Amino acid sequence: MAALTRTGLEALVPALRELVGDRGLLIGDDAAARTCDPFRHVPPAIPLIVRPGSTQEVSAVLALCHRRGQRIVTHGGRTGIAGGAYAGDEEIVLSLERMAAVEEIDPVGQWVAVGAGITVEAVQNAAAEHDLFYPIDLGSKGSATIGGTIATNAGGNHVIRWGMTRQNVLGIEAVLADGTVVPAMNRMLKNNSGYDLKQLFIGSEGTLGIVTRAVLKLLPRPRTQFAALLSLPDFASAIALLGRARRMPHLSAFEVMWNDYYRLVAASGPERRPLAPGQPYYVLVEAMGYDEEADSRLFDRFLAGAFETGLIVDAVSAASGKQIADLWRVREASEIIVREMSPFVSFDISVDIRSAEAFVEATRAALAKSFAHARTVTFGHLGDNNLHLGVHIGPDTMARETEIEHCVYAVLARFGGALTAEHGVGRFKRAFLPQHVSPGALEMMRRVRACLDPERLLNREVLF
Amino acid sequence: MAALTRTGLEALVPALRELVGDRGLLIGDDAAARTCDPFRHVPPAIPLIVRPGSTQEVSAVLALCHRRGQRIVTHGGRTGIAGGAYAGDEEIVLSLERMAAVEEIDPVGQWVAVGAGITVEAVQNAAAEHDLFYPIDLGSKGSATIGGTIATNAGGNHVIRWGMTRQNVLGIEAVLADGTVVPAMNRMLKNNSGYDLKQLFIGSEGTLGIVTRAVLKLLPRPRTQFAALLSLPDFASAIALLGRARRMPHLSAFEVMWNDYYRLVAASGPERRPLAPGQPYYVLVEAMGYDEEADSRLFDRFLAGAFETGLIVDAVSAASGKQIADLWRVREASEIIVREMSPFVSFDISVDIRSAEAFVEATRAALAKSFAHARTVTFGHLGDNNLHLGVHIGPDTMARETEIEHCVYAVLARFGGALTAEHGVGRFKRAFLPQHVSPGALEMMRRVRACLDPERLLNREVLF
Repeated sequence: MAALTRTGLEALVPALRELVGDRGLLIGDDAAARTCDPFRHVPPAIPLIVRPGSTQEVSAVLALCHRRGQRIVTHGGRTGIAGGAYAGDEEIVLSLERMAAVEEIDPVGQWVAVGAGITVEAVQNAAAEHDLFYPIDLGSKGSATIGGTIATNAGGNHVIRWGMTRQNVLGIEAVLADGTVVPAMNRMLKNNSGYDLKQLFIGSEGTLGIVTRAVLKLLPRPRTQFAALLSLPDFASAIALLGRARRMPHLSAFEVMWNDYYRLVAASGPERRPLAPGQPYYVLVEAMGYDEEADSRLFDRFLAGAFETGLIVDAVSAASGKQIADLWRVREASEIIVREMSPFVSFDISVDIRSAEAFVEATRAALAKSFAHARTVTFGHLGDNNLHLGVHIGPDTMARETEIEHCVYAVLARFGGALTAEHGVGRFKRAFLPQHVSPGALEMMRRVRACLDPERLLNREVLF
Repeated sequence: MAALTRTGLEALVPALRELVGDRGLLIGDDAAARTCDPFRHVPPAIPLIVRPGSTQEVSAVLALCHRRGQRIVTHGGRTGIAGGAYAGDEEIVLSLERMAAVEEIDPVGQWVAVGAGITVEAVQNAAAEHDLFYPIDLGSKGSATIGGTIATNAGGNHVIRWGMTRQNVLGIEAVLADGTVVPAMNRMLKNNSGYDLKQLFIGSEGTLGIVTRAVLKLLPRPRTQFAALLSLPDFASAIALLGRARRMPHLSAFEVMWNDYYRLVAASGPERRPLAPGQPYYVLVEAMGYDEEADSRLFDRFLAGAFETGLIVDAVSAASGKQIADLWRVREASEIIVREMSPFVSFDISVDIRSAEAFVEATRAALAKSFAHARTVTFGHLGDNNLHLGVHIGPDTMARETEIEHCVYAVLARFGGALTAEHGVGRFKRAFLPQHVSPGALEMMRRVRACLDPERLLNREVLF
């Protein structure tokens, strides 16, 4: 049995129990059964998970930990892949799982107020009951929480239309490391009454405070959906096609797959091969709107124009929800990549769209020079600058992970790219952050963190 | 002649001249000829304006002032109406007017990098040369600068589609009070590499640092434009109409005019009276897109549906750019309001859309109770929660400004509204901020400001 042996914890537990009650604590095996990593079992080093049931309890727990110098790692849905939920041997875990209510929904102002522990999917479902829509959509939406997506500024497939999580949060309530509650549950689309404090917490990966509640912006639920998978003769066509797609106000996704990705996925079976492999680029375009006739006209004209100007070689367009889902299975085929490429090191970077092709080629060349059997898969949200890259160099891939990272990030730095587009820095990319932001920016980040959490009690090993 | 008599300034001027040269200084009458207020001549108290020509010069000037404890007020286009550009007798002015270049424009990634002193209109023009579009549009765009609109998170008429300035800034470079340069000229739509520092500066009204350069997001330039002016029988219809309008992906404005506004403007002449006065609400709806046929179909169906369901009493729709401009002259008639209502106290607030009518009625009732001859004009961006309200109580309006403010803000606080939607707090609304944000939020704002500008050298009298 996982035991609480560290000195000081024996005294901490009763004090915590006083604040959050029996239901608010998971100790020993119950805590050790939890994982901090979505792909493999990585329990928290100390088997102690505090689960406050209210903002007041979060505040009391943080104030207690602050007095004792006790470090804390915050848990949302633990679906992040940058190690942000890992808890080391000086850290206890605070989970928002008991604060998961839909508190209020306003169909006129189009917002919903929720507890931070609610899942993205539960928010989507609550919105749908009012014919509304929360546009942040992730593969992990059944587990990922609103608090976690706020802390990491999660993206996903619809960013090109509706932005990242940051663009979809109206207000938050957060608790600082010393227990101070910061209520900023704004519900207005426009509010310039002082600093927009929520912006500090969004994307700060839990290092500046713990988000306890949030107000999310909603949209009218789309009634139409169109999608097509296209094969392209070259990268210049992908850029030209993106320019045309951006002139559809109802464009909702523009996903590019490099040949290394499409070939791998297409080989897995005919249902993942709606178009013949062999072209250098494949693009999944999606549009969502509210008027069947106008929307289909726009989408059809986009496809016809792309054919006429030679931007696409071949196309398959979907005529039903089932067919659209099938096209998305080509783009969201992580289980095939895991099966065919493992072990692999994954990258989530942003680059100048104009040089995305050159960046990928330079990266492959650099990998080939350093590793005898390097293989890549490359895909991403090109319109958002965001590429995902998987690298496998053989059975020793994970043993040489750091070498692979150095190799890719060195090319990335040459291209002025961003270390992480949507997955965050977490623990895993922390060592590389200083190369990818300027010293002045890093200095300012340090000042802000020191101002709000001078003892670095919150997510200490994360970011920098 | 305006003279530099304050002790210490005689020594400061040569030190500044050393840093920025003769061109970089305006002294005496040249400085006193400047106004800090867009409506009347309010010169800076000290006739000294520093105009650095580069980020390095801004940094050097701030470092010098920091060593000497010299306070600074930053000037952009000085079009703000909250007193943010007022400079008192312990403050010198730093103007970004010489840093106004278009540095780079990327038609593929759709962004432009500029100096902070460039005007909004110059950015719009530079974008148009590449068939691109910068959606922040203000009456003062010929004078308002990008730096100023970033510092105040400016809004305008297109927020319902494209958001506030915050949503249209990708990166910034700023200089802190001690001269530290923070380069964060991000050009990526997705970048989660550490804290998103630009968010701190946007909307902070120059209190956390001076924005010197920025990267702005651009869009494909719209090719179609539709507008209609509608009269409505009641407020419930305005809400229902807004719900329908939001289902047009190309909706670009939804402006509501209360009867007190429309009656006043309509009385000024037939060209400002496209619809008969007498209805309680008037709405200007606008849509912009890229496909004439699809876009006009959507807009026509929206109008037809509104008629059929009885949401609108009458409508006039515009068929050309000239006609659209004429409809906008009904909504943008500030010269008529100034002529017919002056003197008046103006408010820029946000309220829950559902209770906007009740708020306006409660405000009128409270004003009528306190003042014998209160008159109001009411209009705004209802879809963004944002109402503008002008109040006139007679010749003594300005003498009793504070009383009027207390009266309106007391009602606003009861309705949970926001003190300022888009104009900012500046100096003029500073006294009211503590009533409209929570103590915890205000405490966090103080901590952040103290962390970045502990001596409060930047825009000291602004915000809080």
